[in-house]
Amino acid sequence: MKIIIDAMSGDKAPEEIVKGAVMARRELGVDVVLVGRQEVVKACLEKEGCTDMEVVDARDVITMEDDPSTATRRKKDASMTVALTMLRDGLGDAVVSAGSTGALLTGATLIVKRINGIRRAALAPVLPNGGKGVVLIDSGANVDCTPEYLMQFAYMGSFYAKTMLGLSSPRVGLANVGTEDTKGGVLQHETFQLLKEAGEAGRINFIGNVEGNGVFSGDVDVLVADGFTGNLMLKTAESMIKFMMGNLKSVFYKSLKNKLAAAVLKGDLAQMKKMLDVKEVGGTVMLGISRPVIKAHGSSDARCILAAARQAVTCVESGITEEIKANIEYMKIG
Amino acid sequence: MKIIIDAMSGDKAPEEIVKGAVMARRELGVDVVLVGRQEVVKACLEKEGCTDMEVVDARDVITMEDDPSTATRRKKDASMTVALTMLRDGLGDAVVSAGSTGALLTGATLIVKRINGIRRAALAPVLPNGGKGVVLIDSGANVDCTPEYLMQFAYMGSFYAKTMLGLSSPRVGLANVGTEDTKGGVLQHETFQLLKEAGEAGRINFIGNVEGNGVFSGDVDVLVADGFTGNLMLKTAESMIKFMMGNLKSVFYKSLKNKLAAAVLKGDLAQMKKMLDVKEVGGTVMLGISRPVIKAHGSSDARCILAAARQAVTCVESGITEEIKANIEYMKIG
Repeated sequence: MKIIIDAMSGDKAPEEIVKGAVMARRELGVDVVLVGRQEVVKACLEKEGCTDMEVVDARDVITMEDDPSTATRRKKDASMTVALTMLRDGLGDAVVSAGSTGALLTGATLIVKRINGIRRAALAPVLPNGGKGVVLIDSGANVDCTPEYLMQFAYMGSFYAKTMLGLSSPRVGLANVGTEDTKGGVLQHETFQLLKEAGEAGRINFIGNVEGNGVFSGDVDVLVADGFTGNLMLKTAESMIKFMMGNLKSVFYKSLKNKLAAAVLKGDLAQMKKMLDVKEVGGTVMLGISRPVIKAHGSSDARCILAAARQAVTCVESGITEEIKANIEYMKIG
Repeated sequence: MKIIIDAMSGDKAPEEIVKGAVMARRELGVDVVLVGRQEVVKACLEKEGCTDMEVVDARDVITMEDDPSTATRRKKDASMTVALTMLRDGLGDAVVSAGSTGALLTGATLIVKRINGIRRAALAPVLPNGGKGVVLIDSGANVDCTPEYLMQFAYMGSFYAKTMLGLSSPRVGLANVGTEDTKGGVLQHETFQLLKEAGEAGRINFIGNVEGNGVFSGDVDVLVADGFTGNLMLKTAESMIKFMMGNLKSVFYKSLKNKLAAAVLKGDLAQMKKMLDVKEVGGTVMLGISRPVIKAHGSSDARCILAAARQAVTCVESGITEEIKANIEYMKIG
């Protein structure tokens, strides 16, 4: 297996990306190919004492300033564009990039293409919930959604939880403002019917509407939302983590006795912090693309790239793409 | 000033509600009238050693099983219905109820009525952000919104932050999936223009689009959202608080040394927990109703009722209703 890593994208590129790539090859036992300015990437590799990793030259870089909808079309020689093109051409099994989410999503859609029959690719991060995690799909790829999109997200999220998180019958819920069947707007009403039918046919384990206060309760494995709502839910949760961590820190530094007490708890709290850190879980898989494309966090350091590469490996081995293809007829309307 | 308290609604009614009412009268120095089954409420009052509080008899109770959209119409003699009718008739200055949000909102709209020109009332809880709090409007009253509704929410939220939180120039943001002006769907695009114009005219301090990760950062005072998104943001945040508190607890109980360290931090952590507890802040004001109606949390105990009553007093004294009325012409389209 060969993982294609975009060496030039992300806040800490190329140093940390290259470092992560070296770690990934060593720890995961897979081949890795780095894409980026050859001389720069090779200098980073040398620093890591690694001289035998494959590097594919790409002279350009897609930045956060580039228009996401046109970036890969306009910058043909950008590391991200080259990486995605290599994936399309079978020169690797998955792409990991810490670059612009929008550019990567558009590029993956245009270059690697969606699975035949899938209307829209979706972002499906796995959030901590005390168990194997909850898949929030879509968390930002599609602002405007149709019931069919959401139904496809439900299926894809369910397959993800099954093949990648190892849940035998993932509980799929529809994010809504109440648990009653009739809650929400037109989009929710129509989606609810589609998911109910899919559930009754035994294709997914649909548990109905789930409110926001159920997201991290461990009572739902896959939460389906339009990308607008899902993105705001995801980032609101991140904001709350940050806010609470800041408050905890203030408590710990408040007095000498607090500092001493906090020192005792330090190790266990660091564990908790790690568990809450979405970057640690790995990247976000772009579900619906015909080959695995993993978006690593923009601020990824080497460990995050390693985690994203691990996820890429799992994604390739999981057979999720085959599972989606095998069920595509059920995932369409009309 | 007289606060009308619905004694029969809420998980802990009537005991805790009555207890809270007695505390409110004592601590806030206002008149309180309790509405509910006279014999039951009076028995509770006796237990509290209070025999001179006004009680208005209402034989029925609106429960969570009642259809919110018809509850106050069908149950004319319910405590909530009678309380709202008293408010309409000037027999008190504000209503506090821990009953069904939907029933209270519908009842307030039908009985007390909206301020002339206001299209929809909105729920505007104040969430902790390390400062004076952030007003999230709407957090669930209106699933389907128009740009005009959102513009009215922005104005009302701004007036709330000004008159009730004491902010001289509240920073108003539009909840969105990115900070760029063009982010979001049609609703956000059109609302953005309206808020931009209101900002340029100096009527609100519009700071643009705000992402989910900015909610609790302290960088925004009023966050405007449709009720569907706002509700999921609010409850997702609550879910994360609960999840993190559970994790913290596990850390504290993990070992004897952790338990001892946690004991040292106990007081300060309790303070933090209190700050994060939305119930402690008080209730949620239903903005846009012609007189103050405060929804206390369904699980309210006496302290929560006291906090909600305090908020009712502030609301009456703030002049927010007058401020909305004085600006209503700017808050309309066409």
